Amino acid sequence: MKTIAQRTPGFAGADLANLLNEAAILTAKNDKKKISMAELIESIEKVMLGPERKSHVLSEKEKKITAYHEAGHALVAHLLPHADPVHKVSIISRGRVAGYTMKLPSEDKHLRSLSEFLDELAVLLAGHVTEKEIFKEVTTGASNDLKEATKLARRLVTEYGMSELLGPRTFGEREELIFLGKEIHERRDYSEKIAEIIDQEISNLINGAKKTAKNLLTKNRSLLEKITNELLVKETLEREEFEALFKNSKN
Amino acid sequence: MKTIAQRTPGFAGADLANLLNEAAILTAKNDKKKISMAELIESIEKVMLGPERKSHVLSEKEKKITAYHEAGHALVAHLLPHADPVHKVSIISRGRVAGYTMKLPSEDKHLRSLSEFLDELAVLLAGHVTEKEIFKEVTTGASNDLKEATKLARRLVTEYGMSELLGPRTFGEREELIFLGKEIHERRDYSEKIAEIIDQEISNLINGAKKTAKNLLTKNRSLLEKITNELLVKETLEREEFEALFKNSKN
Amino acid sequence: MKTIAQRTPGFAGADLANLLNEAAILTAKNDKKKISMAELIESIEKVMLGPERKSHVLSEKEKKITAYHEAGHALVAHLLPHADPVHKVSIISRGRVAGYTMKLPSEDKHLRSLSEFLDELAVLLAGHVTEKEIFKEVTTGASNDLKEATKLARRLVTEYGMSELLGPRTFGEREELIFLGKEIHERRDYSEKIAEIIDQEISNLINGAKKTAKNLLTKNRSLLEKITNELLVKETLEREEFEALFKNSKN
Amino acid sequence: MKTIAQRTPGFAGADLANLLNEAAILTAKNDKKKISMAELIESIEKVMLGPERKSHVLSEKEKKITAYHEAGHALVAHLLPHADPVHKVSIISRGRVAGYTMKLPSEDKHLRSLSEFLDELAVLLAGHVTEKEIFKEVTTGASNDLKEATKLARRLVTEYGMSELLGPRTFGEREELIFLGKEIHERRDYSEKIAEIIDQEISNLINGAKKTAKNLLTKNRSLLEKITNELLVKETLEREEFEALFKNSKN
Amino acid sequence: MKTIAQRTPGFAGADLANLLNEAAILTAKNDKKKISMAELIESIEKVMLGPERKSHVLSEKEKKITAYHEAGHALVAHLLPHADPVHKVSIISRGRVAGYTMKLPSEDKHLRSLSEFLDELAVLLAGHVTEKEIFKEVTTGASNDLKEATKLARRLVTEYGMSELLGPRTFGEREELIFLGKEIHERRDYSEKIAEIIDQEISNLINGAKKTAKNLLTKNRSLLEKITNELLVKETLEREEFEALFKNSKN
Amino acid sequence: MKTIAQRTPGFAGADLANLLNEAAILTAKNDKKKISMAELIESIEKVMLGPERKSHVLSEKEKKITAYHEAGHALVAHLLPHADPVHKVSIISRGRVAGYTMKLPSEDKHLRSLSEFLDELAVLLAGHVTEKEIFKEVTTGASNDLKEATKLARRLVTEYGMSELLGPRTFGEREELIFLGKEIHERRDYSEKIAEIIDQEISNLINGAKKTAKNLLTKNRSLLEKITNELLVKETLEREEFEALFKNSKN
Repeated sequence: MKTIAQRTPGFAGADLANLLNEAAILTAKNDKKKISMAELIESIEKVMLGPERKSHVLSEKEKKITAYHEAGHALVAHLLPHADPVHKVSIISRGRVAGYTMKLPSEDKHLRSLSEFLDELAVLLAGHVTEKEIFKEVTTGASNDLKEATKLARRLVTEYGMSELLGPRTFGEREELIFLGKEIHERRDYSEKIAEIIDQEISNLINGAKKTAKNLLTKNRSLLEKITNELLVKETLEREEFEALFKNSKN
Repeated sequence: MKTIAQRTPGFAGADLANLLNEAAILTAKNDKKKISMAELIESIEKVMLGPERKSHVLSEKEKKITAYHEAGHALVAHLLPHADPVHKVSIISRGRVAGYTMKLPSEDKHLRSLSEFLDELAVLLAGHVTEKEIFKEVTTGASNDLKEATKLARRLVTEYGMSELLGPRTFGEREELIFLGKEIHERRDYSEKIAEIIDQEISNLINGAKKTAKNLLTKNRSLLEKITNELLVKETLEREEFEALFKNSKN
Repeated sequence: MKTIAQRTPGFAGADLANLLNEAAILTAKNDKKKISMAELIESIEKVMLGPERKSHVLSEKEKKITAYHEAGHALVAHLLPHADPVHKVSIISRGRVAGYTMKLPSEDKHLRSLSEFLDELAVLLAGHVTEKEIFKEVTTGASNDLKEATKLARRLVTEYGMSELLGPRTFGEREELIFLGKEIHERRDYSEKIAEIIDQEISNLINGAKKTAKNLLTKNRSLLEKITNELLVKETLEREEFEALFKNSKN
Repeated sequence: MKTIAQRTPGFAGADLANLLNEAAILTAKNDKKKISMAELIESIEKVMLGPERKSHVLSEKEKKITAYHEAGHALVAHLLPHADPVHKVSIISRGRVAGYTMKLPSEDKHLRSLSEFLDELAVLLAGHVTEKEIFKEVTTGASNDLKEATKLARRLVTEYGMSELLGPRTFGEREELIFLGKEIHERRDYSEKIAEIIDQEISNLINGAKKTAKNLLTKNRSLLEKITNELLVKETLEREEFEALFKNSKN
Repeated sequence: MKTIAQRTPGFAGADLANLLNEAAILTAKNDKKKISMAELIESIEKVMLGPERKSHVLSEKEKKITAYHEAGHALVAHLLPHADPVHKVSIISRGRVAGYTMKLPSEDKHLRSLSEFLDELAVLLAGHVTEKEIFKEVTTGASNDLKEATKLARRLVTEYGMSELLGPRTFGEREELIFLGKEIHERRDYSEKIAEIIDQEISNLINGAKKTAKNLLTKNRSLLEKITNELLVKETLEREEFEALFKNSKN
Repeated sequence: MKTIAQRTPGFAGADLANLLNEAAILTAKNDKKKISMAELIESIEKVMLGPERKSHVLSEKEKKITAYHEAGHALVAHLLPHADPVHKVSIISRGRVAGYTMKLPSEDKHLRSLSEFLDELAVLLAGHVTEKEIFKEVTTGASNDLKEATKLARRLVTEYGMSELLGPRTFGEREELIFLGKEIHERRDYSEKIAEIIDQEISNLINGAKKTAKNLLTKNRSLLEKITNELLVKETLEREEFEALFKNSKN
């Protein structure tokens, strides 16, 4: 029961109902009579990331890039003190993603601090940084990470008052207008000059996070290679398998 | 009767009807036959802040941050001459907030002065400033305060003519357009140059309020600790309990 | 009959019908059989400003601020040659206003001149200026005056060609689009540079009017006190009572 | 028949039908059996300017301002070689206007030249300029002239390629979108820099026209007074009466 | 048959059906039983330019301006190597135009080159340039040419990558949104700086074309006069008549 | 089967069903009973590019321009290491295009790298560059290539974080709003200064690609002529025919 609780942070009643429904369907498919832990865990991933795409076969080169990319995310997440712990790393495609690193907070959080956000930014950029370090160029595989990182950096600056330069105030009117199924996010209520400073602050946050990720990846290159190789062999590393790699490396 | 009147400033007939309705439901739930003061006060808070969220359990760390944050608001509100008096401080989650400090004006007000607004700004920023002082960084818990403070500062400058620099005029056409359930707030009818000055004036007001809060909190650090500790023990301080802390401290 | 005509400038047939209707209702309420002048005058005010709000009780401090504020409007209106004469000054709340000064032009006007507008601007700012002079800070009570003054100053500059700097032309396309009950006022058809000059010209007009009001109020401080005191005692001054204060002061 | 043709330039079949209808109604009102020339001419004015407003009584001062204003329009129109000839000058209110000067082209025009437009601009500004010369300040009576002049100047620059500085090209996409009964006029398809030059060119055209009008009015001051006086006496001058004033003045 | 094919470039099946329909109606009106070439050619013009407007009588002055204007278009079109050949020149009003010069490409074109566009721009500006040369000022008659020329120049720069300065890329998202019968053309997706360069490039293209037209018209002034005179006499010149003027002039 | 798989990259189930349907129709038209490879390949092209347009006859000059244009695309695609291999080159019009070069990736790709995009940009610009080199001016034939190249360059900079200058972040909120059948692509959430840098980076990418294409085309001019001549003779070159030209040239 604790495993399920840990892997479903922020799940509301309806989400849990949906989850059990998926698990029941899966159990029926597997010709079982009782929902077991295996079906539950499989269903959690399906609900969060979309179904596994067996047909979506990556080339050898793509598999290698994806393995390094995910290993980068996982390694940086493991090393940074305020990042959520890694629950699973995988290079099996799910939904639209080539691979994924599942990080789950060790407890439900109601308050998030700047330290946590900075570590999260570094984790988000780690895939991009790893690709650049290893292959000397980046692919489209990082574009979703970059989008998430930019969004998060923008919120730190415009919603949470975490920019020293701009001070403890907010910028932009957030609107949640549902207009023919479309959400429009922000109405600019500041001058062009402020818009420039916001851009600058977002870039500073992104560049700082990139540097953090790069330093960690350079100093722990052999760990990166180890995780990548393990991923290429096993395709999926559960939390215990992943953490074991670190214990071994200290021997 | 006076207690209810004091705690429901600005309540119109419909609000009072709604309040009595909530109290009646609560009384029925409690298997009582007559609405007592306890149900009335419980209902006032429910109508103003949303229902108590027992399931929304904060971690120890979060509870500590929330206690300091609310103690900061309450202390600054108590110390500033034009701020509304504190009626209750609590770290029990209600609706979307982790904790709350309920301030109520001692009488219905029809005119608000700049002094009152400046004190209100300082009270709004006090939570943020306290977190920074105590924990050296801020959390997302202050974001709603920052949004309210920014909105208020903007109104001082653009609606109430309280900026010396911009003079006794208004800026922007306020619109109350209800368009598919959406309120659009302001139409810019001034130049980019004015937009920059408005931004500057808002920042000046915010920074001034931050400084006011910071000075008070530094000078009254032991009181801050006292309120925080009391809050961590009792979770909720009613007005009398809160004010008693100050009397004792003078002994 | 002349009194009614003077107090209802610009009233169309429908407005007069509405007025008589209100007076009839009031007469019935008062258990009278014929509409008297008292009901007619009461109804004129109700139609123009909204109903009296007996329950809307101001505090002593608010009453004093309101009295000075209205006395300021009335005094400046009385002293400026092109301002409409004062018909009534009151600190009884009506509709949304804490107090009001009713000025009516001595005849129906079809052409308005710059001199008249400049005096009107000074009258509009007089409440704000008085508050600042007497209490050293302003309240929200002046915000509607400031909005009206800004609107008027904008029209002088953009619609009436009364700015020497911008010359005899208009700026902005006025639109009277009724879109889901909403009027959108102006479409900008000029450059940012012109927008800056318009802002500058509006501020110049406002600042000039402020200076005019301030000078008059400073030179006639004892008259201001006299009107204020009379207002605090009687709450409402009809035209004759108001003008009597000036005759006496010359004795 | 020729008189009617001259006074109804640009009238389409439907307009003429409407005109005859009005004349028939008027004839019936006057208890006549046949439509005479008097009813036809009265109807032309009603269709073009709105009905006479007998109740809309101007004050003596307003009548004087209006007489000078219209005399200014008429005098400049008479003196400029490319302006349309004056058919009637009147200080009887019609529709929304306090007075009017009816100018009709001597023939239907399909091509308009820059010279004609420049003269038209000067005629449009003549009322404003006259008010300023005679009364040292302007009234709101000129605001519609200023709006028309600005619109015309804008078209010269943005639609007709008549600005030497901007050259033979057009600016802005004209749209004739009927959106809930609303016409939106121009979509900006040029840079801010061009917007500034357009503003400058419009101002140059307006200022040039103002100068033209001012020179003519100064040099022909006695004629201006003569027309004004005649207008104050007769209220309306038909073409022959108006032109007679010039013949006499040469005697 | 070849004449019809040449005069209907780009006609789709539906256009040809429409054309034949018009010709059939015209044949019936003329009390003929078979559609002859005369009706077909008349119909082609009606479909392309709108019906002849016999009632739309131009003044002598306007006829002269129109003759020079059209002669200018036709002459420049004839002289420029990449312009489409002139099929007809006319000063009989059709639809909204005072006169017209019908140019038809000698073959269906699928690719258009910069040379062709530059010549087309010069032909479009030739009417404007001729008016200015002959009458020292321009009329509104050229406004549609200027609008077309501006549109074309904009496309060269923003859609066809033909500006050396801006290089082989496109600017603006073209949209073909049909919104309540309205087409909105371009969404700006570039900076203000680029907007300025686009304006500059369009102006350069327009000014270059103006110079080209001016040079040709100055050097061939006697030919211009010859065509104009012929037009004033015959009102319409068919291709053969038009080209004959050049052969003769070489004799 | 492999040929079909190679020529239909990214085809989903529905696309393949559509393809087979087209092939069945074509087979019926050709009075055959079984779908052969010929019908399948014909159908693939029809689905991807639109139907062949036999009636859309190009002039000799246009055919020559199109041949050089397509040869340019094909040659650069063949020479660049990361560009997709050329499957077919043709100067037979299809849908809206005068000719086409069909490039297909040798395998389904899930990740795209910067190197691949840079080569793709050079291939897209090769038609434009070839026209300029051979004919000294460009035609409208390249406008779609330029639009695609601009779009791709913009994505590299704003979505994939591939600009060194702007760093690993995204710009603009991509919206997929379906509003009356219209997709609106990007909402600007950055300052004017960033907009300028984005423009600059797009231009840098485009100019770099142009240079790459130009160098390759200059160094391999005889190959370009060879492919062009072959295209003018055969109109369509299949992959084997196209690649044979390179083998021969090395002999």
